[in-house]
Amino acid sequence: FSLNLAADCNAVLKALQPIFQEQGMTETVHNWEDHGYLVTYIKKNGSFANLRIHPHGLVLVDLQSYNDDMKGREEVDQLLNKVEDRMKELIHGNIKRVKRLPAILRGGVIDRYWPTADGRLVEYDIDEVVYDEDSPFQNIKILHSKQFGNILILSGDVNLAESDLAYTQAIMGSGKEDYTGKEVLILGGGDGGILYEIVKLKPKMVTMVASNIDQMVIDGCKKYMRKTCGDVLDNLKGDCYQVLIEDCIPVLKRYAKEGRMFDYVINDLTAVPISTSPEEDSTWEFLRLILDLSMKVLKQDGKYFTQ
Amino acid sequence: FSLNLAADCNAVLKALQPIFQEQGMTETVHNWEDHGYLVTYIKKNGSFANLRIHPHGLVLVDLQSYNDDMKGREEVDQLLNKVEDRMKELIHGNIKRVKRLPAILRGGVIDRYWPTADGRLVEYDIDEVVYDEDSPFQNIKILHSKQFGNILILSGDVNLAESDLAYTQAIMGSGKEDYTGKEVLILGGGDGGILYEIVKLKPKMVTMVASNIDQMVIDGCKKYMRKTCGDVLDNLKGDCYQVLIEDCIPVLKRYAKEGRMFDYVINDLTAVPISTSPEEDSTWEFLRLILDLSMKVLKQDGKYFTQ
Repeated sequence: FSLNLAADCNAVLKALQPIFQEQGMTETVHNWEDHGYLVTYIKKNGSFANLRIHPHGLVLVDLQSYNDDMKGREEVDQLLNKVEDRMKELIHGNIKRVKRLPAILRGGVIDRYWPTADGRLVEYDIDEVVYDEDSPFQNIKILHSKQFGNILILSGDVNLAESDLAYTQAIMGSGKEDYTGKEVLILGGGDGGILYEIVKLKPKMVTMVASNIDQMVIDGCKKYMRKTCGDVLDNLKGDCYQVLIEDCIPVLKRYAKEGRMFDYVINDLTAVPISTSPEEDSTWEFLRLILDLSMKVLKQDGKYFTQ
Repeated sequence: FSLNLAADCNAVLKALQPIFQEQGMTETVHNWEDHGYLVTYIKKNGSFANLRIHPHGLVLVDLQSYNDDMKGREEVDQLLNKVEDRMKELIHGNIKRVKRLPAILRGGVIDRYWPTADGRLVEYDIDEVVYDEDSPFQNIKILHSKQFGNILILSGDVNLAESDLAYTQAIMGSGKEDYTGKEVLILGGGDGGILYEIVKLKPKMVTMVASNIDQMVIDGCKKYMRKTCGDVLDNLKGDCYQVLIEDCIPVLKRYAKEGRMFDYVINDLTAVPISTSPEEDSTWEFLRLILDLSMKVLKQDGKYFTQ
């Protein structure tokens, strides 16, 4: 509850106290004098509530219980309804905002919380852990979401979902490129999405270079991200494609030396690369090296795509 | 912390206690005997921590503070790092999962938490409250997100963002319909997205019927959702369109009586309608009535689109 005015901490406590006490909860009050109250209510079944009253006009109620049955949730809703009604009676007209957030579930078999790269809390509608393995380099998870299909998560970082065809299309040039009869080099792309989409477009030859870091990503994706990669990862070689399980830097150097040239280089390496060689001093050095080497194997009118 | 084994509650308390005490926090222990411990640590500045130790092997740490400076956040990270290190020393090899969630911010000017229709907690990258008004029917907010542009939120329900052209395209038939020279009726659609997109396609006439419920939605959108509606809501009449601010049911009845027919009826009314007339007994009655009346004004080969 955000209030329009300073809170009378004692009045708020006195108003809400009976609601918790009716639940058979025992009260412990801490009074900071200058920072308001923390009131803890403890129930016999292991549940508890924190009521934090900030004197400048912010009242926070947290409930925590070990319990996942609907009866428990209904009880929580009823309790919060009572708290809301009592607050509205007490502060009538001067509550700026009431906000009730969904319960956060911790300790379950399925973890539904996968924060974004910019640190925001996002709960996905995940209903199944499809794949969960540790490689020597990272943790590889594939989780099923009703909304997005299977989602690939590398060391806690959401990578790609089966619904993310738009990502693959964008890194291929948003449908504006003609790949027919072309020589294409994919760096990374272990989920197989780019390879699968380009192979459909009758290229001359697609070479995908995925390092051994990606081996277990490929293993997981070829089984559980079929909407992304189709059957293209079932074999490392097809009519118009090959997958090399090698670090891309020596491969690029070899191609550059041999004069092997491509119409397209698509860099789908992870945004923050995992270093396997001592060659690169830093992320930026690594990115510069990849870019320099890519330019060396790109035809005069070739195109380079990346995130 | 999810553990692979039962937790020795007292050992966990003894291991973590010094970390909180070093912070100058005073401890209050509640021991349920059969439900483990709740330990509350209180700091002089108004911050506090809850340490909840479940005997079956779940250890939860919550920190709460009134504070939004980075120094505060760094301190929290350092504290949590210590807790994690100490837990790993104590339970070595038997921690199944460690999960740290981003801080939830409450009571700020900008509310970034807008749960989904299926009750999931989602934090958006909202950086500005662009519009926030109460109409007699609902609260209308337009919030700016870096990722999605301006987002229209009606009574807490995320409606449409400027990035959601895909929604508008889908309800128009995913680009497979030819609207040239056609008579089109839009029910609802107060954000102006459908109207704007169809007007581009040279229809004969588009009639949009938005009830007075939508008046303030239109007012907000024409100012702040310009990527969605362009200039189409600036005037209620254009070369090939008109906007009627009327309840759609009497309008549909009038058209049916007059024999006015349409090539397309697009029903973009909110999923759960706000009742303004006593005519409908329930949501389903309302939806049935709209559908029946729509069929009466649809040409033999006409099409009806809805969510």
